[in-house]
Amino acid sequence: MVTDPGLAAEEIAAGGVAEDQHPSLGGDNPAPAGRWGHRHLLDVDVLSAEELDLVMRTAEGMAEVLARPIPKVPALRGWGLTNLFYEASTRTRVSFEVAAKNLSADVVNVTASASSVTKGESLVDTIRTIEALGARILVIRHAVSGALYLAAQTFGGSVVNAGDGWHAHPTQALLDLYTMRSRLGGSVAGRKIVILGDVLHSRVARSNLWSLTAAGADVWVCGPATLLRGFEAWAAAGVGGSRRFTVTSDVGAALRDADVVMALRIQRERMASGLLPSLREYGARFGLTRERLDAAKPGALVMHPGPMNEGVEIAPDVAAGSQSVITDQVANGVAVRMAVLYLLAGARE
Amino acid sequence: MVTDPGLAAEEIAAGGVAEDQHPSLGGDNPAPAGRWGHRHLLDVDVLSAEELDLVMRTAEGMAEVLARPIPKVPALRGWGLTNLFYEASTRTRVSFEVAAKNLSADVVNVTASASSVTKGESLVDTIRTIEALGARILVIRHAVSGALYLAAQTFGGSVVNAGDGWHAHPTQALLDLYTMRSRLGGSVAGRKIVILGDVLHSRVARSNLWSLTAAGADVWVCGPATLLRGFEAWAAAGVGGSRRFTVTSDVGAALRDADVVMALRIQRERMASGLLPSLREYGARFGLTRERLDAAKPGALVMHPGPMNEGVEIAPDVAAGSQSVITDQVANGVAVRMAVLYLLAGARE
Amino acid sequence: MVTDPGLAAEEIAAGGVAEDQHPSLGGDNPAPAGRWGHRHLLDVDVLSAEELDLVMRTAEGMAEVLARPIPKVPALRGWGLTNLFYEASTRTRVSFEVAAKNLSADVVNVTASASSVTKGESLVDTIRTIEALGARILVIRHAVSGALYLAAQTFGGSVVNAGDGWHAHPTQALLDLYTMRSRLGGSVAGRKIVILGDVLHSRVARSNLWSLTAAGADVWVCGPATLLRGFEAWAAAGVGGSRRFTVTSDVGAALRDADVVMALRIQRERMASGLLPSLREYGARFGLTRERLDAAKPGALVMHPGPMNEGVEIAPDVAAGSQSVITDQVANGVAVRMAVLYLLAGARE
Repeated sequence: MVTDPGLAAEEIAAGGVAEDQHPSLGGDNPAPAGRWGHRHLLDVDVLSAEELDLVMRTAEGMAEVLARPIPKVPALRGWGLTNLFYEASTRTRVSFEVAAKNLSADVVNVTASASSVTKGESLVDTIRTIEALGARILVIRHAVSGALYLAAQTFGGSVVNAGDGWHAHPTQALLDLYTMRSRLGGSVAGRKIVILGDVLHSRVARSNLWSLTAAGADVWVCGPATLLRGFEAWAAAGVGGSRRFTVTSDVGAALRDADVVMALRIQRERMASGLLPSLREYGARFGLTRERLDAAKPGALVMHPGPMNEGVEIAPDVAAGSQSVITDQVANGVAVRMAVLYLLAGARE
Repeated sequence: MVTDPGLAAEEIAAGGVAEDQHPSLGGDNPAPAGRWGHRHLLDVDVLSAEELDLVMRTAEGMAEVLARPIPKVPALRGWGLTNLFYEASTRTRVSFEVAAKNLSADVVNVTASASSVTKGESLVDTIRTIEALGARILVIRHAVSGALYLAAQTFGGSVVNAGDGWHAHPTQALLDLYTMRSRLGGSVAGRKIVILGDVLHSRVARSNLWSLTAAGADVWVCGPATLLRGFEAWAAAGVGGSRRFTVTSDVGAALRDADVVMALRIQRERMASGLLPSLREYGARFGLTRERLDAAKPGALVMHPGPMNEGVEIAPDVAAGSQSVITDQVANGVAVRMAVLYLLAGARE
Repeated sequence: MVTDPGLAAEEIAAGGVAEDQHPSLGGDNPAPAGRWGHRHLLDVDVLSAEELDLVMRTAEGMAEVLARPIPKVPALRGWGLTNLFYEASTRTRVSFEVAAKNLSADVVNVTASASSVTKGESLVDTIRTIEALGARILVIRHAVSGALYLAAQTFGGSVVNAGDGWHAHPTQALLDLYTMRSRLGGSVAGRKIVILGDVLHSRVARSNLWSLTAAGADVWVCGPATLLRGFEAWAAAGVGGSRRFTVTSDVGAALRDADVVMALRIQRERMASGLLPSLREYGARFGLTRERLDAAKPGALVMHPGPMNEGVEIAPDVAAGSQSVITDQVANGVAVRMAVLYLLAGARE
């Protein structure tokens, strides 16, 4: 599977085996990090197709590590990583925690509800404090779109965006790409991929748009017109170069011959703001049901970033059906986050 | 103390000493796990007297580990364990965390208040996610009786019940049994053991009933009639075979010549539901006072699963007195939980 | 820098390198712990100038450890440390967590909001439980002044005060002393140090008064008269022997020729109690602005225990200015807490 010698799991492991040594990331072989030039991961829009490919191949090596009885390598031994979460999360926080511990990093969790952020300290001061406490990698989730750019200007180490407002969720987009590639023969080029639902408020949709179009996919976003605002203009503007991107409220046209259908979570708060009439009506018009899925290609992949409202944006039988790769997404997230942390660390060695 | 060579602390330790090796649980010697056939621990009702004995003897080996300057063995190195707590807990959550870390497992804590379970994700989806994130053992506390059976059907690894509703709290019952055995010459057979208080709402009482009667004890449950509902019928039905089980509201009869008195916590919420007139009246009629304890055998053991309402279900001088083994219960809980995790892991090797 | 051979980082590291051995703290060389006679650290008032010096020099060794690529030593391997926080905190809780992990201790975090302390269990029972669960060092933050003395009477290991009510915050005072010494040529003797703000409610101020006067500094406390209550009488009483201590509401007199100015956090709750007219008026009269700072010595150090209300007790340009050592304080806190944990552990070997 992995042909680049720099990416094989054995060599990732070799990087820091001697415990009394500075944990090099490459061992005797040059690490793939040489081709990775980013100190932070704030979004996927800055990643070229080659860089996306590097993340994917590094993640394949990490998946080999995860398949071992003891899924650990010493690559980040002695590195402090802090998870700073201003919004509740199970899967993303735990995924980063497990990924970091698998690389032998020391993880500290800070959540808004149990910390001095409740005392009104500014984000900048909180980040300076976390750096002074020894963190070299800072994983942040924040409700404000773009807050992470402020964080990156402040923090002396590497910042990883674990979701900021409606803006971006880059590791989700990378794990989605990894999941699709591994199920679609190694590439999404030319594949029809549908993102279905509340695109307007979705950082998952925005990040996926960048990475999937960069990787050559034919991306369709579909949902009620109120939840697509601004995307039509974006699509009409061409997004950038040869990227293929279609916006529609016609769910039939969107799903027809699709290779992948990714349903997005509907936030119940959207009802209050008048953007949606009711969950029931949303489900009836845009929910991913067995009937709708039958319009896609046979064996089309079903995805969802979670957590799901089953019976609303996705039918329970579809979520648990044979085409669903939703659990794969979660498992691949650990490998992809290991790869991201490893590449970011390597870029700073 | 430990005569079975498979159970000695040295051999537990030997199981995974070589760090680059798959962590076998038995080393050169066959592990006791061969005689343990359960993948999950949902309650103690399924454990035979022989299996209870195996847990007890394995816990003795773990107690030897705990007595060392560095109380750690590598048995579960590389194993992910997730504590998923839907109810607040200090002692149980920390006890499992310490037990797992002593076995070198990697522990992740997820609590309902700080996680996506607040977003309404189903228990099944949460469990699938935790498994995909790498957990091989899942420790759950949940407010709904029986929710753990659903968890066990879903989770691909081992599920351990850390308390579900009124239903069961198996590791508490096991640590109670361990504490009694170690103080009563190695066996509870024929001993009169009184469980005093709000039996109706107590998962601790229910689990103890199974394990103590299986181990041959003469079990009495005692409390206000409103808090014993259903238990009289259960006792009258004979529970099962030769188990000895008496239900009474006569606290004098219950405590007379008792070997062990276990007071249960009174939840303040019970007042609102009309099941109890007042905490003061409960304390006056059923509180474990020095006078009442004097009716028991000299040196009878005083137990409580914690946390205590001192001055209500137990008098402060009794809780802190020479007959109290309440702190022993907590300490033994770590050894017993190490044993349970070790046996569950061994059953899956 | 470190001339005492017992304090060098190499020897701290040497203490427990062999993983299968009891983690001695001294290795072949006698540990400095021989001169440290305290089992607990509840406040700095009991520390002599010599003991303060020992903590400082041990912290210098720990700072060398922190400068390594892998900032870890095995000194406390196998030691359980529990952080028990009854009040929200980021920096202090994480600082102790990082310090303990750097010494290879096993850390458990317990916060009031997510634990059985919400069930009304007494502090004494909670502490007995934590000890029975295996903790040998207990770090506590509690809202009640003096609660830590009760904790120390109960707990069989070492108690470290992480802040109790208005009373004391000894590790903050030690890290403040460390920061001043390292910036002022190794000593604070004869230096004019101003503590500015809500002295009345400040455990940071109280602990700093003890350690700074013991180390020979000329300490001034300054704030509105309502927030200095009792301190004038204390100062008039002479505090004790040759300690130099002045209390004033004259901010000009206080800052004149100061070597260090430490601004304290203003709690918004103070408005409600009528002790302060408004945050704006406080800022106008006592806020640490650039103009006020110019009255101090050129290059005078600016300190703050955090979290800051920028624009109230300290101006943003002062907080982020070249004289600010606020981030140093946080970083030094890790080294100082490593030193404290190391010395406390050594005292019990």
